[in-house]
Amino acid sequence: MSHTLTLNVGSSSVKFVLFRRADQTQVVQGVFDNIGQETPTLRIVDADGSRQVPVNGDLTDVLGILPEIDGIVQAHPMEISAIAHRVVHGGWLYDSHRVIDEALLQGLETLRDLAPNHLPLEIGFIRRSLDHYRTVPQVACFDTVFHRDLPDIAKRLPLPRGLFDKGVRRYGFHGLSYTYLMGRLPDLIGDKAQGRVVLAHLGSGASMAAVRRGKPVDTTMAATPLGGLMMATRSGDLDPGIPGFLARAHGVQPQDFEHMVSAESGLKGVSGATGDIRDLLAREKANPAAAEAIAMFCYQTRKWVAAMAAALEGIDVLVFSGGIGANAPVIRQRICEDLDWMGLTIDTQANATKGELCISAPGSKVMIFALPTDEESVMAATVNALVTFNGDD
Amino acid sequence: MSHTLTLNVGSSSVKFVLFRRADQTQVVQGVFDNIGQETPTLRIVDADGSRQVPVNGDLTDVLGILPEIDGIVQAHPMEISAIAHRVVHGGWLYDSHRVIDEALLQGLETLRDLAPNHLPLEIGFIRRSLDHYRTVPQVACFDTVFHRDLPDIAKRLPLPRGLFDKGVRRYGFHGLSYTYLMGRLPDLIGDKAQGRVVLAHLGSGASMAAVRRGKPVDTTMAATPLGGLMMATRSGDLDPGIPGFLARAHGVQPQDFEHMVSAESGLKGVSGATGDIRDLLAREKANPAAAEAIAMFCYQTRKWVAAMAAALEGIDVLVFSGGIGANAPVIRQRICEDLDWMGLTIDTQANATKGELCISAPGSKVMIFALPTDEESVMAATVNALVTFNGDD
Repeated sequence: MSHTLTLNVGSSSVKFVLFRRADQTQVVQGVFDNIGQETPTLRIVDADGSRQVPVNGDLTDVLGILPEIDGIVQAHPMEISAIAHRVVHGGWLYDSHRVIDEALLQGLETLRDLAPNHLPLEIGFIRRSLDHYRTVPQVACFDTVFHRDLPDIAKRLPLPRGLFDKGVRRYGFHGLSYTYLMGRLPDLIGDKAQGRVVLAHLGSGASMAAVRRGKPVDTTMAATPLGGLMMATRSGDLDPGIPGFLARAHGVQPQDFEHMVSAESGLKGVSGATGDIRDLLAREKANPAAAEAIAMFCYQTRKWVAAMAAALEGIDVLVFSGGIGANAPVIRQRICEDLDWMGLTIDTQANATKGELCISAPGSKVMIFALPTDEESVMAATVNALVTFNGDD
Repeated sequence: MSHTLTLNVGSSSVKFVLFRRADQTQVVQGVFDNIGQETPTLRIVDADGSRQVPVNGDLTDVLGILPEIDGIVQAHPMEISAIAHRVVHGGWLYDSHRVIDEALLQGLETLRDLAPNHLPLEIGFIRRSLDHYRTVPQVACFDTVFHRDLPDIAKRLPLPRGLFDKGVRRYGFHGLSYTYLMGRLPDLIGDKAQGRVVLAHLGSGASMAAVRRGKPVDTTMAATPLGGLMMATRSGDLDPGIPGFLARAHGVQPQDFEHMVSAESGLKGVSGATGDIRDLLAREKANPAAAEAIAMFCYQTRKWVAAMAAALEGIDVLVFSGGIGANAPVIRQRICEDLDWMGLTIDTQANATKGELCISAPGSKVMIFALPTDEESVMAATVNALVTFNGDD
């Protein structure tokens, strides 16, 4: 039986899932975390349940992960017949998911300046994977593809016209998550999924998408994954006079500025402590800066929900997803409470439950959902659409 | 009879108004435009009406304007007993309007990095004025003062905590205009001025203020006058990854980036032609780029109105002002049309008229106004509050 392996690489984490191709069910998934840090961890979920597994002490780098994954896969008698890689940025070159070849990798190289924190690592990892699984077809699933048909008015940024052709435009991200959520909605609300939908993917990276009649209308992130709303460690959109002020008044160099808005801002910057919202929630009663960081995140998110609603000329459905959106009921509660003027009425009791949920009150003008996302199932489905298989399925 | 002279200096323009102190009426006002360019102009309004006046051919610089103004003032038998200067930025030093002395000028020097396009010119101009009118008390009226009591959640930006104390925070601008508009509203709508009010100052610089119970709650600009919504030539808020991308991929230096987002972006950048909305409206039928620039401006403005409404948890009153807001009915129409979901219903016929107007339809949930602003009357009133006079009034 043939299987698809999905690989989702971060700077210190790798998530992999093995899908049985025929019915798209998950056989095993694993998440390596804190790679290269003091205590790397691995959590595996398979037919035997969910458990922590010891990690090979030699694992110091995400690029060394493939033999580890092989070890886990070999415990399950199966053939890996295709691999899907999540790729953050398709830039101006790729507006559809693609089978990976050398030309594509060279294309990605030309885009690396758009996502210097993500793309070089992803390219390096894909090269390792091509070396390691020489005969297995591999696919790049881009987080930007979902937004490719944004209207021009949203795609264009308020900058000199010529910059559009130099690649400075709104691409948007978290597209695999948005694709999953838009695929899930009709099961939950039928034709109402064709209405004015705001998708809020709130995780350590966070963005929103405005969707009407199933078509993307706008999104909060722009040319790079640093824009839009404030995040765990990223600032989101900023007054563009700030880098110049910091350079002149405090000698902050451009590369230091980029590091700051990427790794030292957002929840971490405002709290002065951490970008992890669970930690901040645990501290907020004793720590005013932690409380301020959470309050700011909820406040900025409300402003962006309203801006996305303006893009749609109203809102019928709001979907929370991502690590925070799916798993932090108290954050959803605080975001929605002060949006009642827009017709959102949250059901506090439903919201406090875990799982895939409708969390709006019965009379709410706007339906509100909390849905765990599943980017990997979108990647596996993409493989089935792009790769022709011979054999047993 | 004593008089107050107000002075409002731009890079190529100076507006002055002479007020009779006793009753705050205007005796004469004048606007010099295109100074240092090919054809400088001067329009004067006084008891004899409004007219163009020839400009001295030697006038090549706004710093040389004071003798010109003297010439005009001498035609009216009066004494200048106080002068008010509009100053763009009070930064972290000045949260109230101040009588100018050497200490204040030295303080402003320390703020120049916050507004390098405005403050150095304004400081130089004030020094000229102190030299020229040695015995006349002079007052600095700051555009940031209106916002001084913003809640912390709005004042703080999503950046490392320590930057707040280094001056990187939300100050907000156009405060003299907002002060005037908030002073005018009770005459028009009584106690309803205490509701949730969004003030949209749309001129070549453009920003919005959210005000509830007369108190500022949020505003679109942040640390410098480059942030918030797109403007005539300024970009407004941006993805903070863009300067790094432009530097790496296209060699754009930090100072070139700042010039670009200040002078080559916004309506001018998108149209590829001009930041003047009247010119763009005249071209839009024949020129798709001009049409796109206008459409983007209206679209971005709607998104910001919604974001400001989210800050206020709803909206009762929307006020348009500034050169575009007060004088471009077609822009107001396009902004409001697609905000009906928020309870705005514009009265197309009322909107098409000129002057100080209620432009919402009778049944509109949100009241909408178009009001010319009058920053100079706020400056003249500030002088009366700060400067004690002897003599005839």
